[in-house]
Amino acid sequence: MKAARIIEPEKPLVISDVDTPEPKDSEVLVKVKAVGVCHSDLHLWEGGYDTGDGFMKVTDRGVKFPVIPGHEIVGTITEVGGSVQGFSVGDNVLVYPWIGCGNCPACRVGNDNLCDAPRSLGVFQNGGYAEYVLVPHFKFLAKVSGIDLDAAASLACSGLTAYTAIKKANANSQHSIVIFGAGGLGLMGVQIARAITSANIICVDIDDAKLQTAKELGADSVVNSKDADATQKIISLCGGKGADSVIDFVNAPPTVKMGLAVLRKRGNLILVGLFGGSIDLSLVTVPLKAITIQGAYTGSYNDMLELLGLAKRGVINPIISKRYSLSEANAALEDLKARKILGRAVINP
Amino acid sequence: MKAARIIEPEKPLVISDVDTPEPKDSEVLVKVKAVGVCHSDLHLWEGGYDTGDGFMKVTDRGVKFPVIPGHEIVGTITEVGGSVQGFSVGDNVLVYPWIGCGNCPACRVGNDNLCDAPRSLGVFQNGGYAEYVLVPHFKFLAKVSGIDLDAAASLACSGLTAYTAIKKANANSQHSIVIFGAGGLGLMGVQIARAITSANIICVDIDDAKLQTAKELGADSVVNSKDADATQKIISLCGGKGADSVIDFVNAPPTVKMGLAVLRKRGNLILVGLFGGSIDLSLVTVPLKAITIQGAYTGSYNDMLELLGLAKRGVINPIISKRYSLSEANAALEDLKARKILGRAVINP
Amino acid sequence: MKAARIIEPEKPLVISDVDTPEPKDSEVLVKVKAVGVCHSDLHLWEGGYDTGDGFMKVTDRGVKFPVIPGHEIVGTITEVGGSVQGFSVGDNVLVYPWIGCGNCPACRVGNDNLCDAPRSLGVFQNGGYAEYVLVPHFKFLAKVSGIDLDAAASLACSGLTAYTAIKKANANSQHSIVIFGAGGLGLMGVQIARAITSANIICVDIDDAKLQTAKELGADSVVNSKDADATQKIISLCGGKGADSVIDFVNAPPTVKMGLAVLRKRGNLILVGLFGGSIDLSLVTVPLKAITIQGAYTGSYNDMLELLGLAKRGVINPIISKRYSLSEANAALEDLKARKILGRAVINP
Amino acid sequence: MKAARIIEPEKPLVISDVDTPEPKDSEVLVKVKAVGVCHSDLHLWEGGYDTGDGFMKVTDRGVKFPVIPGHEIVGTITEVGGSVQGFSVGDNVLVYPWIGCGNCPACRVGNDNLCDAPRSLGVFQNGGYAEYVLVPHFKFLAKVSGIDLDAAASLACSGLTAYTAIKKANANSQHSIVIFGAGGLGLMGVQIARAITSANIICVDIDDAKLQTAKELGADSVVNSKDADATQKIISLCGGKGADSVIDFVNAPPTVKMGLAVLRKRGNLILVGLFGGSIDLSLVTVPLKAITIQGAYTGSYNDMLELLGLAKRGVINPIISKRYSLSEANAALEDLKARKILGRAVINP
Repeated sequence: MKAARIIEPEKPLVISDVDTPEPKDSEVLVKVKAVGVCHSDLHLWEGGYDTGDGFMKVTDRGVKFPVIPGHEIVGTITEVGGSVQGFSVGDNVLVYPWIGCGNCPACRVGNDNLCDAPRSLGVFQNGGYAEYVLVPHFKFLAKVSGIDLDAAASLACSGLTAYTAIKKANANSQHSIVIFGAGGLGLMGVQIARAITSANIICVDIDDAKLQTAKELGADSVVNSKDADATQKIISLCGGKGADSVIDFVNAPPTVKMGLAVLRKRGNLILVGLFGGSIDLSLVTVPLKAITIQGAYTGSYNDMLELLGLAKRGVINPIISKRYSLSEANAALEDLKARKILGRAVINP
Repeated sequence: MKAARIIEPEKPLVISDVDTPEPKDSEVLVKVKAVGVCHSDLHLWEGGYDTGDGFMKVTDRGVKFPVIPGHEIVGTITEVGGSVQGFSVGDNVLVYPWIGCGNCPACRVGNDNLCDAPRSLGVFQNGGYAEYVLVPHFKFLAKVSGIDLDAAASLACSGLTAYTAIKKANANSQHSIVIFGAGGLGLMGVQIARAITSANIICVDIDDAKLQTAKELGADSVVNSKDADATQKIISLCGGKGADSVIDFVNAPPTVKMGLAVLRKRGNLILVGLFGGSIDLSLVTVPLKAITIQGAYTGSYNDMLELLGLAKRGVINPIISKRYSLSEANAALEDLKARKILGRAVINP
Repeated sequence: MKAARIIEPEKPLVISDVDTPEPKDSEVLVKVKAVGVCHSDLHLWEGGYDTGDGFMKVTDRGVKFPVIPGHEIVGTITEVGGSVQGFSVGDNVLVYPWIGCGNCPACRVGNDNLCDAPRSLGVFQNGGYAEYVLVPHFKFLAKVSGIDLDAAASLACSGLTAYTAIKKANANSQHSIVIFGAGGLGLMGVQIARAITSANIICVDIDDAKLQTAKELGADSVVNSKDADATQKIISLCGGKGADSVIDFVNAPPTVKMGLAVLRKRGNLILVGLFGGSIDLSLVTVPLKAITIQGAYTGSYNDMLELLGLAKRGVINPIISKRYSLSEANAALEDLKARKILGRAVINP
Repeated sequence: MKAARIIEPEKPLVISDVDTPEPKDSEVLVKVKAVGVCHSDLHLWEGGYDTGDGFMKVTDRGVKFPVIPGHEIVGTITEVGGSVQGFSVGDNVLVYPWIGCGNCPACRVGNDNLCDAPRSLGVFQNGGYAEYVLVPHFKFLAKVSGIDLDAAASLACSGLTAYTAIKKANANSQHSIVIFGAGGLGLMGVQIARAITSANIICVDIDDAKLQTAKELGADSVVNSKDADATQKIISLCGGKGADSVIDFVNAPPTVKMGLAVLRKRGNLILVGLFGGSIDLSLVTVPLKAITIQGAYTGSYNDMLELLGLAKRGVINPIISKRYSLSEANAALEDLKARKILGRAVINP
C-alpha cells in the first residue's frame, strides 16, 4: 500500500509503497477514506514541544521513527481478524486512536488517552496517512452513518479534545464559559458548549473574523483580547465576578495570564493547547481563590461515542476547509504550519 | 466582657472591656472555653499576604479594624435568641466560623467557606479572643461531647483544612499521597489520611524530628527534602511512576517545585499553605501530563461534622502543646510567629 | 387582595379578599402575573395521595388549611423588605417555591426541595392563587426576561421536575432514555433530553396523538404501550439490551412493571409521577442486574436557574394551552381533574 | 491436576484428575493455596436463584456444566505466558475473578463485575476448586504479601461485595449506616464501615451472639430485629429521622420491609444478599421521600486493590473459621448449606 512516513523530524515525509498489514484475532484492517491533518502531526514532525524551559522530544516520550502519522481516521473495513465481533467488511468506521496498554490505572477505567504507556495510532504506531491502517482491536472502532465522513474524522481528536474540555468546564458550573482561541478547536468548543450547556459563552481571540464565526456558531459574546480593556470586558460579561470556567485552546503565556485574571473565585482554568511557554504563578492565590488549573488531553472512547451522537443530531458541524491527496501530505503539513488552513483539512488517500 | 482586639496591623492587640453582645432571633451567645491560635490570625495581624509579586492587604479583602480575632472556637452556650432550635443553654459547642452571605453560588450549595462575600468569625466579624462570642445563627454550631474541648477547637480550621485536602487527594486516587510539611496541618493530614484512606502515605519535611512524629502518627515513609536525591526517593516510594496526589501544606516555591517534579501523569497537586511566593509553570506540561493543580481552603460545615465524627472515634488526635490566658494573647501570637509552638496552641479566656 | 383559598379538602376554593402581606427584612412582595395549575394542587385539594396500601393525608405531612395554593409563580416585584439586595420594584421574577428550613442536611447543600421540614409556597404557606404572594427571602427569586412569562411559570415545578429527572438519567449513561408518559411533564422531558443529551430518546404512552407530539418535540422513537409486543419493541429500540434509563412520569403499576421489564443490566429507573399504587418487586433481581430505582422530586434553585437558561436559549418551550382568571380557579382545577387540559394551564390573577 | 467439578446441579461434585492448563500469551497459571467457600458456589451447585415469582436457572444466565467452581482464589504463580509483564513465577497473588468481555459499556470503564457477557472464574469458566487455575490475563492478578493468604481469599468476593456496598452508603451520607445481617458479609461490612467512615454504625440481626461479635468489630449499636419495637429503636438510634443508608446483606422480604421502614427521607437502600423473595413496593413513596434502592454486586479490580490495602493496614481482618482439603469439597458445601460455618471457610487444595 502507499503510505506517507516521517523518517526523521523536520525532513519531508517519504511517500512510498509499504507492506499492507494483515489483521488477525481481534484486529481490523480499515481502508482510509479521510485522515485529519492535525497540529499534533506538526509536533510529531518537528520532533517535540516547547516546554517553556526547554524542548520535550517526542522520542523521549517513546516515539520511534519512521512512523506513519495520522490519528483522525475514517474509513471502511476491508478485512477482519478471526475473533472480531459486531463489525463486518464494508462498515464505515471512525477509529479511536488513543490506544493504551490496557493494564495501567488509566486504561482500567477507560481513560486509554491518559495511559502510562500509550500506543496511539499515528504517534506510537502507524496511523492513517496511508491507504490502509491496522486497528489492533475492534473495540477501538465506532460505526459511522448519517454524517459526512470527511467531517467525522476530526471527531477523533480536535472534536474530542474540545468535548472533554467543555465537559470539565460544565462540571464546575453552568453559568459562564470563556473560550480562548477561535481556531478549529475553539470553534468546535463553542458549538459543543452551545449544544450541551445553558452557559453564557464568551469567545476571545485576536482575530475579528474568527470571532465573527464564533458568534455565528453560538457564542453569546466575543472579545478581542487586543482591546486595552479586554480583561475588564470579560469580567463584566460574566456578571462582574469573573468566569466560572476558562478553557484555553491556545495555552500560551498571554492567554493564560488573561485567563487567570478573568477567573472568579472557585473558578476552573482548563489548559488544552500545546503552544508552549511558561507563566509566573502566584502560589497563595490558588488556595485563597480556591481555583483549579487542569489539563485536558483528547478523551475516552465513550466521550467519542457521545460526541458522534451529537454530530448525528446535527448540533455540531466540523467544518472541512481543504482536502489533499496522499501525495500532497507534505503540502498539507506545510500549509498548516503556515496557518493557511481555516478550520480543518483532511487527506483523502 | 474582656476581649483582645487588633486595632491596627502590626500593633499589639488591645485587651480591654467591651460590651457583651446580646443574642436575638436565631443568634446564640457562646462563652469561649478555648480558641485556637492560628497562622491566619498572624496574617490578619500582619495585615495581609505575600502574593509573589506584591502584598495582598486584608483590608482590601473586606476586613475592618478593630476586630476581635479567633476562629477556632469551642465554648458553652449561655444565652439563645428567640427562634433558636435544637440548642440549649449549657450545651458545649464547636463553632463553624466560615460564615458566608447565604445567597452566592458557593453558599447555596453549603460551601460557605468559599463565599463571594465572607463574614467569617474572627476575620470579618468579631471572633473568639474574648470571653464571649456571638454566633449569628444556631446552624453554625455543632455539639461536642466525649472529646477534649481544647483539642476540638482546632477542628474548625486547621483540622478542617487538612480534612478537605485529604478528601480531594483521595477523590483522585487511593494509591499514594505525598504530604509536604509536617507542621500542625501536615501531621493532622497524616492522621486523617491514615484514618480514611488505604493510601501509601509519604511525608516530606526539612526537619527530621517532625518527620519522626509523622511516622509515629501513620506515615508509611518519610523523606527529608534536603536530601540530594529527595525527588527520586519520593518517586520510588510511589512505585516508580510518581505520586497520585501531592498535598502542599507549605505552598512555598521550593515545595511546589518538588511537588510538581514528583507528580505522576494524571496527578493532582493540592495547594493549601499560605506561605507565598511564585513559581514558573510550564504550560504544555499541564495538558500533556493531564495534571490538576487546585487550591484547598478550610471546608464546609458538613466536612466539620464528619471530622468531629472521626475525632469522637479517637482516630485523630489534635495535639495541644501550649495554653495561654486571654491576657497573654500577644505572647501567643509572638510565640507562633517565632515558631516556638509545636502542634497547636489555644487561649483559654 | 383577592385570593383563592382551599378551606378544606374536596370543597370548592373560596375566592375572597384577604390581607395583602407586607414584606420586611429580606422578604419580597410579588404581584402575580401567572400561576401554573399543577397536579400537585389537585392532590392538595383532594387532601392526599394513594400510597398503594392506604391514603397519605397532606395534613399528616404538615399542611394546614386554609391555604392559598399555587407554586408555579411568575410576577413583578411591587415592594421589598429593608435588607433585600439585587432585586428592585418592577423586576419580573420567577419564584422558587420549594423553600426549606435552611438547617437540615438537604437545605445545607442547596436541596431545599428535599427538606426535612419543608415550607413550600402554595403548600405549607400561601402561594400564588392570589393577586400577591409574599416571598420569604430574595434568594428564592430569579429574574426573567426574554421569554413568555406565562410559559416561564411552569419552569418552577413541572419543568424543574422533568429537568432533574433527565439529569439523573444522563448521569447513568448517555445512550438511551425511555420516557413513560407523554403528558406535560413527559413532553417537557423529551425537549430537555433533546437539548442537553445525545441520547436515543424513546417515548411511551397509550395515546397516539400525544406520541405524535413527542416525536415532533424530539423523541427518536415512540411506542404505544398497548401494543402486544411493546416491551420487546422498546428493548429492540435500545439496541437489544434494554434501556440505560427509564423515567416514569406516570409511576403507576403498569408503567413501572414495563419499565422494569425493559431496563438493561446496570439500568436506572427514575420514578417521578405521583399516580400511586404498588408493585411486587423481585428482590434478588436488584443486585444481580445491579439496577437502581430512585425517586425524583422537583429540583434545587440552581437546577431552576439552569433550566431558565435553556428556556432563554429557546431550546425548550413550555406550552400553555389554557388561561383562567382568578375567579375561575375552581374551574381550572376541575378541568385538570377531568383531563381536559393538554400541556399546561395558568391562572392570570 | 486434581479438581472438584460440578457435573450437574444438586449432584455431588466429582473430584478427579483433569488436564492441567498451559498458559500462553498474557495468561498465568496459579497453584491454588486457598479458595473460599462462598454462598454463590451453593447457588451454582443448586442451579439457580429464587426470584420471588420463579427460579432463575444459572444455565439460562450462561453457565455450562461441568465446571470447576471457586472464585475466591489465592495462590502462587507457577508458569506465565510469553507476554506477561510485572508478574513472575513464585509471586503470591490474589485473583480478581469477575472477568468480563472487555468491550461492553461496563468493562470499558473498569466494571468487569457488571459485564454484559461475564466470564467469571468459578462460574462461567473453571475456578479454584482445583490444584491449579488458569488466569486469562495478568491484569486480573494482585500481589499479596504481609497478610494471611487464607484470609486474603475472601477479599475477592465477600470482602469486595461488602466494600462496594459501604462505599455506596458512604457516598450518600456519612451520618448513619444500618447494616442488616451479621453473617460473614455483614461483619466484614461493619469492619469496613469502621475503617473508612465516621458514620454511626447500627447492626441488625436475629442472633444475639452474632450481634455481640458485630459490636466487638466496631458497630456503635446493635438491634435484634425480633424485638417488637426494633423499627422504632433503629430510627431512634439514627437520631429520630431514620437511616441515611441501609445495607441489606440478607435481602429477604422481612429485612427489606424493615429496611424501608427505617429509611429516612433521601435515604439509600442497598440490596446485596441473594436470599430471594419479593416485596410490595409503594410507588408514590419513592419520589415523595426521594429514596434510592440500588443493587450492589461484587466490585471492580480497583476496589479489590483498595480493599487489599486496608487488609495490609490491619484495619480489616477476614476471619477463617474452617479449613477443608480438596477431597472434602462436598462436605464444605454441605456444611455451608447447613449453616454450620461461622465467618468464612476455605479449601486448601
